[in-house]
Amino acid sequence: MTDPILVNSRPYRLPSTPTIVVCVDGCEQEYINQAIQAGSAPFLAMLASEGTVLTGDCVVPSFTNPNNLSIVTGAPPSVHGICGNFFFDEEAGAEVLMNDVKYLRAPTILAAVARAGKRVAVVTAKDKLRSLLGHELQGICFSAERADRVSMAEHGIEDIVSRVGLPVPDVYSAGLSEFVFAAGLSILKTERPDLMYLSTTDYVQHKHAPGTPEANAFYAMMDSYFQRYHDEGAVLAITADHGMNAKTDAIGRPNIVFLQDRLDERYGTQASRVILPITDPYVVHHGALGSYATVYLRDRETCPEVMQFLAGINGVEAVLTRAQASQRFELPSDRIGDIVVLGERLTVLGSSSGEHDLSGLTVPLRSHGGASEQKIPLIFNRKLSGVDDARRLRNFDAIDLALNYLA
Amino acid sequence: MTDPILVNSRPYRLPSTPTIVVCVDGCEQEYINQAIQAGSAPFLAMLASEGTVLTGDCVVPSFTNPNNLSIVTGAPPSVHGICGNFFFDEEAGAEVLMNDVKYLRAPTILAAVARAGKRVAVVTAKDKLRSLLGHELQGICFSAERADRVSMAEHGIEDIVSRVGLPVPDVYSAGLSEFVFAAGLSILKTERPDLMYLSTTDYVQHKHAPGTPEANAFYAMMDSYFQRYHDEGAVLAITADHGMNAKTDAIGRPNIVFLQDRLDERYGTQASRVILPITDPYVVHHGALGSYATVYLRDRETCPEVMQFLAGINGVEAVLTRAQASQRFELPSDRIGDIVVLGERLTVLGSSSGEHDLSGLTVPLRSHGGASEQKIPLIFNRKLSGVDDARRLRNFDAIDLALNYLA
Repeated sequence: MTDPILVNSRPYRLPSTPTIVVCVDGCEQEYINQAIQAGSAPFLAMLASEGTVLTGDCVVPSFTNPNNLSIVTGAPPSVHGICGNFFFDEEAGAEVLMNDVKYLRAPTILAAVARAGKRVAVVTAKDKLRSLLGHELQGICFSAERADRVSMAEHGIEDIVSRVGLPVPDVYSAGLSEFVFAAGLSILKTERPDLMYLSTTDYVQHKHAPGTPEANAFYAMMDSYFQRYHDEGAVLAITADHGMNAKTDAIGRPNIVFLQDRLDERYGTQASRVILPITDPYVVHHGALGSYATVYLRDRETCPEVMQFLAGINGVEAVLTRAQASQRFELPSDRIGDIVVLGERLTVLGSSSGEHDLSGLTVPLRSHGGASEQKIPLIFNRKLSGVDDARRLRNFDAIDLALNYLA
Repeated sequence: MTDPILVNSRPYRLPSTPTIVVCVDGCEQEYINQAIQAGSAPFLAMLASEGTVLTGDCVVPSFTNPNNLSIVTGAPPSVHGICGNFFFDEEAGAEVLMNDVKYLRAPTILAAVARAGKRVAVVTAKDKLRSLLGHELQGICFSAERADRVSMAEHGIEDIVSRVGLPVPDVYSAGLSEFVFAAGLSILKTERPDLMYLSTTDYVQHKHAPGTPEANAFYAMMDSYFQRYHDEGAVLAITADHGMNAKTDAIGRPNIVFLQDRLDERYGTQASRVILPITDPYVVHHGALGSYATVYLRDRETCPEVMQFLAGINGVEAVLTRAQASQRFELPSDRIGDIVVLGERLTVLGSSSGEHDLSGLTVPLRSHGGASEQKIPLIFNRKLSGVDDARRLRNFDAIDLALNYLA
């Protein structure tokens, strides 16, 4: 056996069996539980006895990009730097998307495993994650969203659409995730990668509650692919970037606290800038509304007073200083605001009411971002051994557990 | 118009139209939302525009008896004294059920309205609530559980089973609640009470998640009765005693912290006594497992140390002193322990593992008791007017809103 490789100060054994790590976007544990209850997920149900089912915590903000990067680096955002989809670049003085590799501060385990001579493949649903996940990766890396535009030179694969036999799906569809699994199966059978990372989209979870027919059908689809990966002999590790909760009242109206409006009304329009790190180009299904916001203040001396004001707003769960948030959630302190605000389980935080296009919310809002979406599953198709019972498990331990703790 | 009556220092106008207050046991708002999405609750859906739909907070501990008593007294447990189904009577030195009227410290609005000359009726699902709700009430008061044993002398009604035309249901069934609504309809049409209080059981909510076929069918049943009450011209106020959450991992195993075991292991078997106020004679569907516990200490000097120990346990959300809990949750300080412990949203608190019979848990545990089940609906079939937007609404404002704020 070769020596383990070190990535971000953690050791990883190189895989000797094809190992697939799946990040199921927005996988509140209850989705799996209810799908099992409905008989829609027989393979996952079987893992209770034949594999290992654990619970862990994701990174807060419980958003897609910070957590995907944590999973593939094995480290919190304080190490890898990606703490949202969107942030206020204080150096540049501008609000910018954080999906450029220049913002990434740590190497990925994926790239390191490839560098050690193993075959690595990455398939993501949305293209927004591809460049970050594929940073310095020699191997296969493409998105379902742009599967018809792959080339051997850029993505390490070609003709994947014809191999999969499914049309390139709409970016807002359950089909986008199914394409990821179908492509993963084709790659598993053909290229036989040593390590493969599959990352889905939470389109279904934003629209449908656990136990509903649409959610159960989506999990049945995933379950059937997990079974096939298992039958192919792969080691399978399934986790999530974050959970998902209803953010509505009894008749499905969203509970929204428009923080910029509240702050402007109280302190004037120039006093603060609210940033919603959930913001990205794909907002149709959540209207850029999540349960996490950051606030930049013109005058930092006002911080205690503003924090007290924010803490008194109905629907706000916690208000933290930059230092408190950096420490509690392991965030890069130079990329979060002067104040971090969390919404309660059933409440989302907006900026100004006029800045949110809610026309895409055709069903009651379900979203994430807060501490109430922090619990995620850690599921393996093998028994693990040697995991300390007292250890606080994180979704970014998924690769560690899959490579270092198989029984 | 007659002068309002005063009950527990709050004024109530006497009803001039038959007014029905419904406490839907365990009605997490998402049940209604999902039932509406599934097309199972057209009447409730219509109230978004034709009536009033609000959100409020229930009493913590988010259990049935404290909240039912709060709704009918219009006051928190610090006033009415009922802070659980079960408590440790320090005077008697014994653990006892708290469903005897001797524990009730405040008059009910129901009894006061009857005393003012109005006709009042109460129908509860389980008999455990009947004597508390019916305290000093001149009127109709009986439980569906014992509907075949009613008498004019004791219950103010007779032959209700033949009038309803349904068999007396099993205590663990959706039918127990349906009987409440059917009896309510018969009483509305025949006795035409001025004020009627209907209280269901959360058997369905403990078993089935929002949006599942069983939950939607239960809410469809309720919706059809609400429509009929509305058609009969009644004013309708719908609220809940508490919400409901899954308390399991991804494959439905309960997340339980056995507090007595943990304390015994750390401090010895004589140092503490854990009380679970959810305990009552009807534990089949939750195994006496909720997200609220109190702890009595032999030596109160150890309180800070024990609190710190408890706060460090994974799954514990909050640990409060008797004084802190009394203040924050408006509880009677002589009837709660030295320490109050809340479980996280997905975690329940047990005493010793050997004391919980989990054989009745045939489906994944869903329960309540903590602050995560505090949000409840407040729904009316009329427009309200004059309610202060900044007011923190409680489920125990339901009668106030229905009698004093109709537009």
